[in-house]
Amino acid sequence: MDLNADAGESFGRWSLGDDEQLFPFLSSVNLALGFHAGDPLTLRQAVQRAVRQRLNIGAHPGYPDLSGFGRRELAMSAAEIGAATLYQLGALSGFLQEAGATMSHVKAHGALYFRVHQDLEAGRAFAAAVRSYAPQAALVVLAGPAGDALEAVAQEAGLTVWREAFPERAYLADGLLAPRTLPGSSIHDPDEAAGRALEMVGGTVQALTGQSIALRADTLCIHGDNPQAVSIARAIRARLEAAGVTVDAPR
Amino acid sequence: MDLNADAGESFGRWSLGDDEQLFPFLSSVNLALGFHAGDPLTLRQAVQRAVRQRLNIGAHPGYPDLSGFGRRELAMSAAEIGAATLYQLGALSGFLQEAGATMSHVKAHGALYFRVHQDLEAGRAFAAAVRSYAPQAALVVLAGPAGDALEAVAQEAGLTVWREAFPERAYLADGLLAPRTLPGSSIHDPDEAAGRALEMVGGTVQALTGQSIALRADTLCIHGDNPQAVSIARAIRARLEAAGVTVDAPR
Amino acid sequence: MDLNADAGESFGRWSLGDDEQLFPFLSSVNLALGFHAGDPLTLRQAVQRAVRQRLNIGAHPGYPDLSGFGRRELAMSAAEIGAATLYQLGALSGFLQEAGATMSHVKAHGALYFRVHQDLEAGRAFAAAVRSYAPQAALVVLAGPAGDALEAVAQEAGLTVWREAFPERAYLADGLLAPRTLPGSSIHDPDEAAGRALEMVGGTVQALTGQSIALRADTLCIHGDNPQAVSIARAIRARLEAAGVTVDAPR
Amino acid sequence: MDLNADAGESFGRWSLGDDEQLFPFLSSVNLALGFHAGDPLTLRQAVQRAVRQRLNIGAHPGYPDLSGFGRRELAMSAAEIGAATLYQLGALSGFLQEAGATMSHVKAHGALYFRVHQDLEAGRAFAAAVRSYAPQAALVVLAGPAGDALEAVAQEAGLTVWREAFPERAYLADGLLAPRTLPGSSIHDPDEAAGRALEMVGGTVQALTGQSIALRADTLCIHGDNPQAVSIARAIRARLEAAGVTVDAPR
Repeated sequence: MDLNADAGESFGRWSLGDDEQLFPFLSSVNLALGFHAGDPLTLRQAVQRAVRQRLNIGAHPGYPDLSGFGRRELAMSAAEIGAATLYQLGALSGFLQEAGATMSHVKAHGALYFRVHQDLEAGRAFAAAVRSYAPQAALVVLAGPAGDALEAVAQEAGLTVWREAFPERAYLADGLLAPRTLPGSSIHDPDEAAGRALEMVGGTVQALTGQSIALRADTLCIHGDNPQAVSIARAIRARLEAAGVTVDAPR
Repeated sequence: MDLNADAGESFGRWSLGDDEQLFPFLSSVNLALGFHAGDPLTLRQAVQRAVRQRLNIGAHPGYPDLSGFGRRELAMSAAEIGAATLYQLGALSGFLQEAGATMSHVKAHGALYFRVHQDLEAGRAFAAAVRSYAPQAALVVLAGPAGDALEAVAQEAGLTVWREAFPERAYLADGLLAPRTLPGSSIHDPDEAAGRALEMVGGTVQALTGQSIALRADTLCIHGDNPQAVSIARAIRARLEAAGVTVDAPR
Repeated sequence: MDLNADAGESFGRWSLGDDEQLFPFLSSVNLALGFHAGDPLTLRQAVQRAVRQRLNIGAHPGYPDLSGFGRRELAMSAAEIGAATLYQLGALSGFLQEAGATMSHVKAHGALYFRVHQDLEAGRAFAAAVRSYAPQAALVVLAGPAGDALEAVAQEAGLTVWREAFPERAYLADGLLAPRTLPGSSIHDPDEAAGRALEMVGGTVQALTGQSIALRADTLCIHGDNPQAVSIARAIRARLEAAGVTVDAPR
Repeated sequence: MDLNADAGESFGRWSLGDDEQLFPFLSSVNLALGFHAGDPLTLRQAVQRAVRQRLNIGAHPGYPDLSGFGRRELAMSAAEIGAATLYQLGALSGFLQEAGATMSHVKAHGALYFRVHQDLEAGRAFAAAVRSYAPQAALVVLAGPAGDALEAVAQEAGLTVWREAFPERAYLADGLLAPRTLPGSSIHDPDEAAGRALEMVGGTVQALTGQSIALRADTLCIHGDNPQAVSIARAIRARLEAAGVTVDAPR
């Protein structure tokens, strides 16, 4: 099972996330590329750190919205999304080549992540950019029914897919993420998150309503920008390894 | 002799330069990469247009200063310049690969152009980024004594160099560009610019003070953002071809 | 009847709109404030030009989206919209005070214009910012049924309202603007636009379907960024004055 | 003696400085205005917090350089600096008026602070903007010989001046700040900083070379963005109050 987190999210004078502490517990990172976070020096350092830690390096393109951290939907056209994605993939590639690394996966950030899942014209433009520039890279989609359409788009484009689950987020009985407005939608306790991560390795997750539902995941996401990120990552990694699960990127 | 111009300098709703009219007279273009001008869609279109016109495509990285169009010196550190250059080279590469093209040269824009000529630590960071990502690409330097130091830096980095002259700009007796504050420092008449371009093919240029001075140039730059750009480009190309000069990128 | 146009829409090196040619035909201008267009020097010059021409000067706040010119919906929260509006009103006020002018009206730009009409929480945040900083300024709303809700919001906030109609846009039978995807939704002929402007002075407009519908307007908007803006403005002004209509801001 | 610190330096998702902990020890704050740091919501919150704490609120305009935090010299023209300053003063005024506060002082940020001290054409454009929009506001200048020229400029413009000293920074024998490259140029120990602050209240400071030199200061600056900011501010305030010094803005 893969453990991924967003990283390289500092910007100039502003720090965010503790890449140094967090990276040892991960197998993959998704690097911010300057549109919603990250600047060229931050990106270079994040790539170099990830290479030293032997992590899989993914591109994490977002909307061009620094003040909103890419978390606000922006009505870019599908053509604009395709071009902005290709631009950001390219921007990462210079630092990858310099460090002797390759792009293992691509995951949209924030509001763009939801956009490409829900708006398939945008999803196709996104997948086409990945296919054009990094055909070897996997496209990360939400595990569960909300990800099926984008998964099909990625496969039509000839791309590998990584299905992503969230041990820190609650799920509804139908396999969708519980809206953040629901009580209990976020899990803050590292042990509980670790328990859920282990469930997910087994292909299930307990829904908010109590029943166990199927959820086939290739990678588990840890939110790198919250204060407990390091302790949650540590707990999940320890629990998985104690259970004999190898933490590594999907093959 | 090569004829180059900056292009792809529109940004979102704002148009600048007439790439469609200008490109037929050029052999090379330097494409803005989003930091001082250009946006992903503009860049994609400029690459595709350049490919259709069989032009040599160069990267034109600049300072991150949209409101100043990259023409204001910005005291970035050499490390920041290196990372920003690598980022911008990468950003172009996605569109080049999509269009089946390669990066023929790299030319710094505006204030960064002067910075890398005058501040050799910055120049070395710039050349190192080119060397790291696009070792086959030529680095464009000012023809004449002001370019010698950067030329040496580029050669130490193992890069090919294109020496660039400006038929629309006056020169001093020592081979330096005449400051824009001097009367007569800019040539606006297409015929006069064309005559100077032909002089430059022969390895000389007439200085403001009248004498003919040596100036070895591989490429001539036409400013794409001024209103007479198209008529100047047309006049220069016609004059060179009438004199039997092949307009093409340096080998 | 008031004639308004967006202005001050240049940004750094990029020009947009011909304020010099357009202003003589207007009675009011809405000035871009740096978030979607405009920079401090452009804004200062636009204010000074408007004062010389004795125009009513309005604030034209927009989304922080230069590359999209504020025309892409951005899911800012109502609180963010309120703060961004107050910031932009303030930014204008420095130049107004310097030039001895006052803020006559406030009109949201582009996607924000539609947002505040459709999302009343956003509309209330917008109106509250105007009320807080410029209680003497009118809030511009769409004439017709699409503007009724925002008009009520503005009035609850104690603000004057200017109802705005578009002589260059077609209307549906129910008084709504015809979507731009419908054939005939934009009027390009200056004479036709002038005829429609005169109709609007009389309180009616002919809908796409042929019938005359009531439309009570206080101000007519001319799009300053299209190439025919000047000839349309000239034609409308001439037609109104020939009919004895005084072109001036609402009282 | 006044104690000031830069504040409101967060930007969107990125936090910087601990305004909540720091404000109780200050008498004045200088608020970032969106060009180098700060966003409209952050600015609104900082103004409201400062009003609750009864602090003097100053404008802290900077260069438009988010990725460099306004600390990199940017070769804006004096006209651009004047317009950018007026824009930022205006932007603050909306939040001040909303909170029932006034602008007590204006202090340039980062590289712009040094620019207006060294380049008097820029300094005059800066002072003219303050004079035009906030004639009641004091202009903050470096105490010591490096501030004399800007002080004269401010006085010619009819402005009050606050002379600012830095208890956390070492001084040379001639009254200039010791360059940051010199060993010992920064003081990190809260007690030492407090001792120097008290010296400064008495009109002197011990130079790096040991002798006591005269330094007439009206306000002492604490760097709000370093990790020890709160403990340094606490120590300075306690030391001054223990010595019977009233911490308050200059009259």
